[in-house]
Amino acid sequence: MSRWKITVEYDGRGFVGWQRQDNGPSIQQCLEEAVEKLSGETVRVHGAGRTDAGVHALGQTAHFDLGKVLTQRAIRDGLNFHLRPAPIAVLDAEPVPDDFHARMSAVERGYVYRIVNRRAPLALDDGRAWQIGRPLDAEAMDAAARILIGRHDFTTFRASLCQAKSPVKTLDVLTVTRSGPEIRITARARSFLHHQIRNITGTLVLVGEGRWPVERVRTALEARDRSKGGPTAPPDGLYFTDVVYGTADNNQGR
Amino acid sequence: MSRWKITVEYDGRGFVGWQRQDNGPSIQQCLEEAVEKLSGETVRVHGAGRTDAGVHALGQTAHFDLGKVLTQRAIRDGLNFHLRPAPIAVLDAEPVPDDFHARMSAVERGYVYRIVNRRAPLALDDGRAWQIGRPLDAEAMDAAARILIGRHDFTTFRASLCQAKSPVKTLDVLTVTRSGPEIRITARARSFLHHQIRNITGTLVLVGEGRWPVERVRTALEARDRSKGGPTAPPDGLYFTDVVYGTADNNQGR
Repeated sequence: MSRWKITVEYDGRGFVGWQRQDNGPSIQQCLEEAVEKLSGETVRVHGAGRTDAGVHALGQTAHFDLGKVLTQRAIRDGLNFHLRPAPIAVLDAEPVPDDFHARMSAVERGYVYRIVNRRAPLALDDGRAWQIGRPLDAEAMDAAARILIGRHDFTTFRASLCQAKSPVKTLDVLTVTRSGPEIRITARARSFLHHQIRNITGTLVLVGEGRWPVERVRTALEARDRSKGGPTAPPDGLYFTDVVYGTADNNQGR
Repeated sequence: MSRWKITVEYDGRGFVGWQRQDNGPSIQQCLEEAVEKLSGETVRVHGAGRTDAGVHALGQTAHFDLGKVLTQRAIRDGLNFHLRPAPIAVLDAEPVPDDFHARMSAVERGYVYRIVNRRAPLALDDGRAWQIGRPLDAEAMDAAARILIGRHDFTTFRASLCQAKSPVKTLDVLTVTRSGPEIRITARARSFLHHQIRNITGTLVLVGEGRWPVERVRTALEARDRSKGGPTAPPDGLYFTDVVYGTADNNQGR
């Protein structure tokens, strides 16, 4: 039995999200079915992050155990063959030690949220970015983002359905940058609460629109009350970009 | 009667191309119908470039004449309202002098061709880039591109159906750059022959794959024979990015 790590890109539209659910197709289910078609083995594919319906990935990672002996290339190309025509692509497959776990061994996760700040609808990026017509002040949004960096109780930005044991997380990176009409929010942390980035994004947009002064984000954070935060941004603009795995040292806490 | 210039973004998939045709929906037809729904007037919308089926635009420009008096914002937002759900968006509308002509007044057109050079299929960019699995040498492609810059007889890269009077064109810019798995070919000229960029791209890819030495592009160009050029690249990766309009001086030649 060998453990395999795969890196996966997907368009989240049309899926109920990463995780298997009864109400529609999930990324996890598509991958598990592709592995079964390729190898004849019924496996469980464990992902690094449980992205929501409509959320995309450029570099989700996952692992599974396979009895059949296959090359890296045969796994990558074979899974891609069997995944068609689903908008899911296996970018890479590599053998990993038996104690590697896509979710539990992860030491950092990266996400990007794309906003297109213009009046016109999105002809090319419909479903892949959040189109906002009102002018946004990206510098104010970045100043507000800085308040959220570090170790905090993020209850204000946590979905009511969140299953995490603690609302305390350490946000390592949260930046807002503009390039033409596009505003990108980059977030990195060991792990995130459910809807944390979308709730933070919805709040930063209130600042960008001038409806909230920058400092109100601090008040909202300190309130530890979801009703004091901004609305949840749509899933369209959110991309799970990458996962960092550490050395044995980094993984002590898992 | 006022003349209006519009800047248009579209996803070329599902269209027969810019120009009205009997065999399916065109961008031109969708825009003309939207203008009619907005104003009640039957107009002809003239585009700066006749993009082929499957070719996209980030900044196609077009003009039309309107009797009804409307603001810039009413035209942009009204056209976008009536264009739904077609993947066409009017980014901007502005009044122009009566002698402005989207096609004939253009002094420079810009295109980008996107190649994603990786084995995995495109989950997020399917239909919006050319996926090539074999490793490409972008530096060799750029060296070959340099041979084509300038004023040449481009018969080797011209579609048999091309209606231009002369095969002689001046290519002002042709660069090939790589960023990770993505290779971008940027091309700028006053005007292009039919399929010129796609035929050049197909040829540069032969160089990138190492199947053609760089200098064979010069031999092909000098042969002035379409059969000596590489294959036509698919429309998926081609984007009409922008059009430059000049001063009265620049337009003398029109």
